[in-house]
Amino acid sequence: MNTVSVVGVGLIGGSFALALRKAGFTGRIIGVSSPAAVRAALELGAIDEASPLEPAASASDVIYLAQPIEQIIETIRVIDAHVRPGKLITDAGSTKLTISEAAAKHLRRGRFVGGHPMAGKESRGVEQAEADLFRGRPYVLTGRDAGLESWIERIGARLVFLDAAEHDRLVALTSHLPQLISTALASLIVDENKAAQVAGPAAMELTRLALSPYEIWRDIFSTNAAGIDAALGAFIGKLEELRSALRDPSMERRFEKAAAAARELRK
Amino acid sequence: MNTVSVVGVGLIGGSFALALRKAGFTGRIIGVSSPAAVRAALELGAIDEASPLEPAASASDVIYLAQPIEQIIETIRVIDAHVRPGKLITDAGSTKLTISEAAAKHLRRGRFVGGHPMAGKESRGVEQAEADLFRGRPYVLTGRDAGLESWIERIGARLVFLDAAEHDRLVALTSHLPQLISTALASLIVDENKAAQVAGPAAMELTRLALSPYEIWRDIFSTNAAGIDAALGAFIGKLEELRSALRDPSMERRFEKAAAAARELRK
Repeated sequence: MNTVSVVGVGLIGGSFALALRKAGFTGRIIGVSSPAAVRAALELGAIDEASPLEPAASASDVIYLAQPIEQIIETIRVIDAHVRPGKLITDAGSTKLTISEAAAKHLRRGRFVGGHPMAGKESRGVEQAEADLFRGRPYVLTGRDAGLESWIERIGARLVFLDAAEHDRLVALTSHLPQLISTALASLIVDENKAAQVAGPAAMELTRLALSPYEIWRDIFSTNAAGIDAALGAFIGKLEELRSALRDPSMERRFEKAAAAARELRK
Repeated sequence: MNTVSVVGVGLIGGSFALALRKAGFTGRIIGVSSPAAVRAALELGAIDEASPLEPAASASDVIYLAQPIEQIIETIRVIDAHVRPGKLITDAGSTKLTISEAAAKHLRRGRFVGGHPMAGKESRGVEQAEADLFRGRPYVLTGRDAGLESWIERIGARLVFLDAAEHDRLVALTSHLPQLISTALASLIVDENKAAQVAGPAAMELTRLALSPYEIWRDIFSTNAAGIDAALGAFIGKLEELRSALRDPSMERRFEKAAAAARELRK
C-alpha cells in the first residue's frame, strides 16, 4: 500500500497513523477530519496532508475509518463511488455486525475487512495519539487481507480473527458489560448517602469506567443491544449463583475458578 | 497509652505498628502472632517483643486485634480475664456487627471499640507492612475513644464514625459487592472460550479483584451474609434498569449521574 486515508483523525486514527510511520510505512497518509483535528494531526506529524473524503478515497489504497460507529456507517453509505475498484476499506469501530452489514450492502467497488483494535485511553482526541497505543493489544479482524495483517503485526498488535457476530457477542462480555457494571455500581453507591465515606481501592477501581462519556457508548448500545442484553443476562445469572452460595462450601471452588480465569487473562 | 499489643502481626497489624512508630509512639509494642510472623516483625522493627496472648493482654493499655474475623471473635471470647479493667480492645476486622456482638457478650473488664481501616494490598503478611498504609484512607470506628482517635489521626487516616450495622451495610456495597462482581465477571469470561482473546483494559481492571484468595473472604461472607445479599439484590436491580433502558434516551442521564458519582468518590 502506498497511500492510506485515515477518516476520523482522533485518538485511534491518529495513533494508527503514527504507528504506521514508526513501523516504517513510507507512503502518504491523508487525514479526513474536522479542521481542528487535521490541524493538530499535521502538527503532530501523524498525517501528511488533509483532504475531503471524496478525493482522499479516490487516491487511496487503504481507507481506514476511525470515526464513531454511526459515522462509519454513514461514510460506508457514500464512499463506494469514489473508491478505486478492489481497494481496501477497513474500520476501527467498537461493534462489527451493523458495520459489516452496511458494508455488504453499500460497497461494491471497495473491499471491506472490519477491524477493532482493543486499545484506548481515558482521554480522546488526536493530541492523545501515540504510536505504541496498539502494542501488545488484541486487534480483531473480521476478514483476511495480507497487506493489512502485515501492518497490524508490524505496529505490535496481536491479530485475532473473528466473524462480526462472534466479535460483538464477545466484546459485549469483555468491554460493554464492564462499562455497564461500573456505571451501575457508581450509581448504586451514590444512592447510599454514607457509602462514599467508606469507599476503598476496590470501589475506586470498579467505578473508574463510569467516568467514560456517554457519547462513545450511545452507538455501541444501539448497534449491539442484543449482545449486551445477553451478556447482562448471563452476568446477572452468575451473580445470583454467587448470591445463593454465599455461605456454601462451594464458594471456595468458585473463587479458585475465577482467580484462575483472572490469572489466565493476564498471561 | 504506653503499651500496645498487636494480636495478629500480618499486613494490617504490622502496618499499624510501623505507623504508630512513625507517628511518634514511644511506648512498647508487643506482637502476638505465629513464630514466623513475630520473627519477621521483630526483624522489621514493627514490634519490640513477642509474647503469648495472656501476658500481652495483662501488660497492655491497648490491644489491637488484627487477625481474620473468626479469630478476632475467638480472641474476644478468651481475652477478658487477662485484660486490666478499663483497658481498650479494638480490632481491624472487615465486618463489624458479629465482632461487636461478641464483644458485647464477652468483654466485661475490657472496653471495646470496633475498627476497620479501609486499606489493603494485593499481597499479605508482615513483610508487606508499611507505615503509610493507612494514610489518606478511611478508618471506621464504631465507638469513641479519644486516645485511639488521636493516634488514628496521627497515622494519617481519615476517621469515620459508623455503628456496626451501618458499617456492614455500607461495606457490603463498596467492598464485598465489588469482590463478587469481579469474581462473577472472571468466571463468566472464562466460560466463553474465545472471550479472553478480546479482553482489553476494561476486562483486566474489573477482574483484578477476582485474584483475591478466598481465605480472606470466607469470614466476611459468613459474618455479613445479609448485608451482601441486600447489596447484590440492589445491584442486580440497577443492572436490570440499565438493561431495559439500553436504547432509551434516559441512558445519557444515567451515565451522567454515574460519572458524577464516580468523580465525587475521587474527591
